[in-house]
Amino acid sequence: MKALLLVAHGSRRKQSNEEVDVLAQKLYRQCSTQYPIVRSAFLELAEPSIPDGLRRCAEAGATEIVVLPYFLNSGRHVISDIPEIVNSVRADLPAVEIKLGSHIGASSMMLELLIERAGSAA
Amino acid sequence: MKALLLVAHGSRRKQSNEEVDVLAQKLYRQCSTQYPIVRSAFLELAEPSIPDGLRRCAEAGATEIVVLPYFLNSGRHVISDIPEIVNSVRADLPAVEIKLGSHIGASSMMLELLIERAGSAA
Repeated sequence: MKALLLVAHGSRRKQSNEEVDVLAQKLYRQCSTQYPIVRSAFLELAEPSIPDGLRRCAEAGATEIVVLPYFLNSGRHVISDIPEIVNSVRADLPAVEIKLGSHIGASSMMLELLIERAGSAA
Repeated sequence: MKALLLVAHGSRRKQSNEEVDVLAQKLYRQCSTQYPIVRSAFLELAEPSIPDGLRRCAEAGATEIVVLPYFLNSGRHVISDIPEIVNSVRADLPAVEIKLGSHIGASSMMLELLIERAGSAA
Protein backbone atom coordinates (compact mmCIF):
# COMPACT_ATOMS: atom_id res chain seq x y z
CA MET A 1 0.00 0.00 0.00
CA LYS A 2 1.38 3.36 -1.07
CA ALA A 3 1.57 6.52 1.04
CA LEU A 4 2.35 10.15 0.28
CA LEU A 5 4.04 12.25 2.97
CA LEU A 6 3.91 15.98 2.24
CA VAL A 7 6.85 17.56 4.09
CA ALA A 8 6.81 21.31 4.74
CA HIS A 9 9.18 23.52 6.68
CA GLY A 10 6.77 24.32 9.49
CA SER A 11 5.92 27.73 10.87
CA ARG A 12 5.22 29.43 14.18
CA ARG A 13 1.97 30.56 12.55
CA LYS A 14 -0.63 27.88 13.14
CA GLN A 15 -2.57 28.94 10.04
CA SER A 16 0.45 28.34 7.81
CA ASN A 17 0.80 24.76 9.07
CA GLU A 18 -2.94 24.21 8.66
CA GLU A 19 -2.62 25.18 4.98
CA VAL A 20 -0.21 22.27 4.58
CA ASP A 21 -2.64 19.89 6.31
CA VAL A 22 -5.48 21.10 4.06
CA LEU A 23 -3.29 20.54 1.00
CA ALA A 24 -2.55 16.98 2.18
CA GLN A 25 -6.30 16.40 2.59
CA LYS A 26 -6.91 17.66 -0.96
CA LEU A 27 -4.12 15.38 -2.21
CA TYR A 28 -5.83 12.47 -0.48
CA ARG A 29 -9.19 13.25 -2.09
CA GLN A 30 -7.53 13.46 -5.50
CA CYS A 31 -5.15 10.48 -5.22
CA SER A 32 -6.64 8.05 -2.71
CA THR A 33 -6.92 5.28 -5.31
CA GLN A 34 -3.17 5.38 -5.94
CA TYR A 35 -2.16 6.59 -2.46
CA PRO A 36 -4.60 5.30 0.16
CA ILE A 37 -2.53 7.07 2.85
CA VAL A 38 -1.65 10.77 2.62
CA ARG A 39 -0.16 12.62 5.57
CA SER A 40 1.74 15.83 6.28
CA ALA A 41 4.89 16.35 8.38
CA PHE A 42 7.15 19.24 9.26
CA LEU A 43 10.90 19.76 9.29
CA GLU A 44 10.68 22.02 12.33
CA LEU A 45 8.40 24.29 14.42
CA ALA A 46 5.35 22.04 13.99
CA GLU A 47 4.17 18.48 14.56
CA PRO A 48 4.40 15.73 13.44
CA SER A 49 8.12 15.59 12.70
CA ILE A 50 9.31 13.82 9.55
CA PRO A 51 10.26 10.62 11.46
CA ASP A 52 6.86 10.61 13.19
CA GLY A 53 5.11 11.21 9.87
CA LEU A 54 6.97 8.28 8.27
CA ARG A 55 6.18 6.00 11.24
CA ARG A 56 2.49 6.96 11.15
CA CYS A 57 2.33 6.06 7.45
CA ALA A 58 3.93 2.69 8.26
CA GLU A 59 1.52 2.11 11.17
CA ALA A 60 -1.38 2.83 8.81
CA GLY A 61 -0.10 -0.01 6.61
CA ALA A 62 2.16 1.69 4.09
CA THR A 63 4.68 -0.56 2.35
CA GLU A 64 5.92 2.31 0.15
CA ILE A 65 6.13 5.98 1.12
CA VAL A 66 6.78 8.82 -1.31
CA VAL A 67 8.15 11.87 0.53
CA LEU A 68 7.22 15.15 -1.21
CA PRO A 69 9.26 18.18 -0.05
CA TYR A 70 6.96 21.24 -0.17
CA PHE A 71 9.90 23.61 -0.71
CA LEU A 72 10.60 26.05 -3.53
CA ASN A 73 14.39 26.20 -3.62
CA SER A 74 17.17 23.66 -3.40
CA GLY A 75 18.49 25.09 -0.14
CA ARG A 76 20.16 23.29 2.74
CA HIS A 77 16.85 21.85 3.97
CA VAL A 78 16.19 20.16 0.62
CA ILE A 79 19.79 19.17 -0.14
CA SER A 80 20.92 17.94 3.29
CA ASP A 81 18.43 18.11 6.16
CA ILE A 82 15.46 16.23 4.70
CA PRO A 83 17.55 13.44 3.04
CA GLU A 84 19.49 12.94 6.31
CA ILE A 85 16.33 12.72 8.40
CA VAL A 86 14.66 10.34 5.93
CA ASN A 87 17.77 8.14 5.81
CA SER A 88 17.94 8.03 9.60
CA VAL A 89 14.45 6.48 9.69
CA ARG A 90 15.04 3.82 7.02
CA ALA A 91 16.69 1.39 9.48
CA ASP A 92 13.64 1.60 11.81
CA LEU A 93 11.28 0.72 8.96
CA PRO A 94 13.06 -2.05 7.04
CA ALA A 95 9.82 -3.37 5.49
CA VAL A 96 8.91 0.02 4.01
CA GLU A 97 10.33 1.41 0.76
CA ILE A 98 10.86 5.15 1.22
CA LYS A 99 11.27 7.24 -1.93
CA LEU A 100 12.33 10.87 -1.66
CA GLY A 101 10.85 13.13 -4.33
CA SER A 102 12.42 16.35 -5.52
CA HIS A 103 11.24 19.71 -4.15
CA ILE A 104 8.30 21.30 -5.95
CA GLY A 105 10.39 24.20 -7.30
CA ALA A 106 12.03 21.58 -9.54
CA SER A 107 8.75 20.91 -11.35
CA SER A 108 8.48 21.84 -15.00
CA MET A 109 4.91 22.88 -14.15
CA MET A 110 6.15 25.75 -11.96
CA LEU A 111 6.47 28.09 -14.92
CA GLU A 112 2.91 27.37 -15.99
CA LEU A 113 1.71 27.91 -12.42
CA LEU A 114 3.45 31.32 -12.25
CA ILE A 115 1.86 32.34 -15.54
CA GLU A 116 -1.54 31.33 -14.13
CA ARG A 117 -0.84 33.47 -11.02
CA ALA A 118 0.16 36.45 -13.18
CA GLY A 119 -3.07 36.07 -15.15
CA SER A 120 -5.18 36.01 -11.99
CA ALA A 121 -3.53 39.21 -10.71
CA ALA A 122 -3.82 41.18 -13.96
CA MET B 1 4.06 48.23 -21.19
CA LYS B 2 3.58 45.41 -18.70
CA ALA B 3 6.20 44.01 -16.34
CA LEU B 4 6.34 40.94 -14.10
CA LEU B 5 8.33 41.14 -10.87
CA LEU B 6 8.98 37.71 -9.33
CA VAL B 7 9.53 38.28 -5.60
CA ALA B 8 11.26 35.57 -3.56
CA HIS B 9 12.35 35.50 0.07
CA GLY B 10 16.08 35.55 -0.64
CA SER B 11 18.70 33.22 0.79
CA ARG B 12 22.27 33.27 2.10
CA ARG B 13 22.89 30.54 -0.49
CA LYS B 14 23.80 32.19 -3.76
CA GLN B 15 22.59 29.18 -5.74
CA SER B 16 19.12 29.46 -4.25
CA ASN B 17 18.84 33.11 -5.39
CA GLU B 18 20.17 32.17 -8.81
CA GLU B 19 17.35 29.64 -9.17
CA VAL B 20 14.90 32.53 -8.81
CA ASP B 21 16.76 34.55 -11.45
CA VAL B 22 16.72 31.57 -13.82
CA LEU B 23 12.98 31.16 -13.24
CA ALA B 24 12.47 34.85 -14.08
CA GLN B 25 14.45 34.38 -17.31
CA LYS B 26 12.28 31.37 -18.23
CA LEU B 27 9.17 33.45 -17.49
CA TYR B 28 10.50 36.14 -19.81
CA ARG B 29 11.10 33.65 -22.63
CA GLN B 30 7.57 32.27 -22.21
CA CYS B 31 5.69 35.55 -21.69
CA SER B 32 7.69 38.32 -23.36
CA THR B 33 4.85 39.17 -25.75
CA GLN B 34 2.52 39.94 -22.85
CA TYR B 35 5.22 41.02 -20.38
CA PRO B 36 8.15 42.63 -22.22
CA ILE B 37 9.85 43.19 -18.84
CA VAL B 38 10.41 40.37 -16.33
CA ARG B 39 12.64 40.83 -13.29
CA SER B 40 13.28 39.19 -9.94
CA ALA B 41 13.60 40.81 -6.52
CA PHE B 42 14.11 39.63 -2.95
CA LEU B 43 12.44 40.40 0.36
CA GLU B 44 15.74 40.04 2.23
CA LEU B 45 19.27 38.55 2.14
CA ALA B 46 19.72 39.20 -1.60
CA GLU B 47 19.64 41.98 -4.17
CA PRO B 48 17.75 43.69 -5.69
CA SER B 49 15.27 44.60 -2.97
CA ILE B 50 11.56 44.82 -3.84
CA PRO B 51 11.64 48.67 -4.10
CA ASP B 52 14.72 48.47 -6.33
CA GLY B 53 13.08 45.78 -8.46
CA LEU B 54 9.94 47.91 -8.90
CA ARG B 55 12.03 51.00 -9.79
CA ARG B 56 14.06 49.03 -12.33
CA CYS B 57 10.87 47.83 -14.01
CA ALA B 58 9.66 51.46 -14.17
CA GLU B 59 13.03 52.65 -15.54
CA ALA B 60 12.77 49.96 -18.23
CA GLY B 61 9.48 51.55 -19.30
CA ALA B 62 6.85 49.61 -17.36
CA THR B 63 3.49 51.33 -16.95
CA GLU B 64 1.99 48.31 -15.18
CA ILE B 65 3.84 45.90 -12.88
CA VAL B 66 2.43 42.60 -11.65
CA VAL B 67 4.21 41.49 -8.47
CA LEU B 68 4.28 37.69 -8.09
CA PRO B 69 5.17 36.46 -4.58
CA TYR B 70 7.19 33.23 -4.95
CA PHE B 71 6.03 31.96 -1.54
CA LEU B 72 4.17 28.79 -0.60
CA ASN B 73 2.26 29.81 2.50
CA SER B 74 0.28 32.83 3.57
CA GLY B 75 2.71 33.73 6.33
CA ARG B 76 3.66 37.15 7.63
CA HIS B 77 5.83 37.89 4.60
CA VAL B 78 2.90 37.36 2.22
CA ILE B 79 0.20 38.89 4.42
CA SER B 80 2.04 41.95 5.74
CA ASP B 81 5.65 42.50 4.67
CA ILE B 82 5.34 42.36 0.88
CA PRO B 83 2.09 44.40 0.69
CA GLU B 84 3.61 47.06 2.99
CA ILE B 85 6.81 47.32 0.95
CA VAL B 86 4.88 47.46 -2.33
CA ASN B 87 2.54 50.14 -0.94
CA SER B 88 5.51 52.19 0.28
CA VAL B 89 6.82 52.41 -3.30
CA ARG B 90 3.53 53.39 -4.96
CA ALA B 91 3.94 57.08 -4.10
CA ASP B 92 7.39 57.14 -5.77
CA LEU B 93 5.98 55.66 -8.99
CA PRO B 94 2.65 57.49 -9.50
CA ALA B 95 2.61 56.78 -13.26
CA VAL B 96 2.92 53.02 -12.74
CA GLU B 97 0.03 50.74 -11.87
CA ILE B 98 1.31 48.10 -9.44
CA LYS B 99 -0.78 44.96 -8.99
CA LEU B 100 0.06 42.50 -6.24
CA GLY B 101 -0.66 38.87 -7.12
CA SER B 102 -1.38 36.16 -4.58
CA HIS B 103 1.36 33.77 -3.46
CA ILE B 104 1.85 30.67 -5.56
CA GLY B 105 0.66 28.32 -2.83
CA ALA B 106 -2.80 29.80 -3.49
CA SER B 107 -2.86 28.42 -7.02
CA SER B 108 -5.40 25.75 -7.85
CA MET B 109 -2.62 24.22 -9.98
CA MET B 110 -0.55 23.40 -6.86
CA LEU B 111 -2.40 20.12 -6.32
CA GLU B 112 -1.70 19.06 -9.90
CA LEU B 113 1.95 20.03 -9.51
CA LEU B 114 2.29 17.93 -6.34
CA ILE B 115 0.72 14.94 -8.10
CA GLU B 116 3.24 15.41 -10.93
CA ARG B 117 6.10 15.46 -8.37
CA ALA B 118 4.78 12.29 -6.71
CA GLY B 119 4.65 10.58 -10.11
CA SER B 120 8.23 11.56 -10.89
CA ALA B 121 9.45 10.15 -7.55
CA ALA B 122 7.60 6.85 -7.81
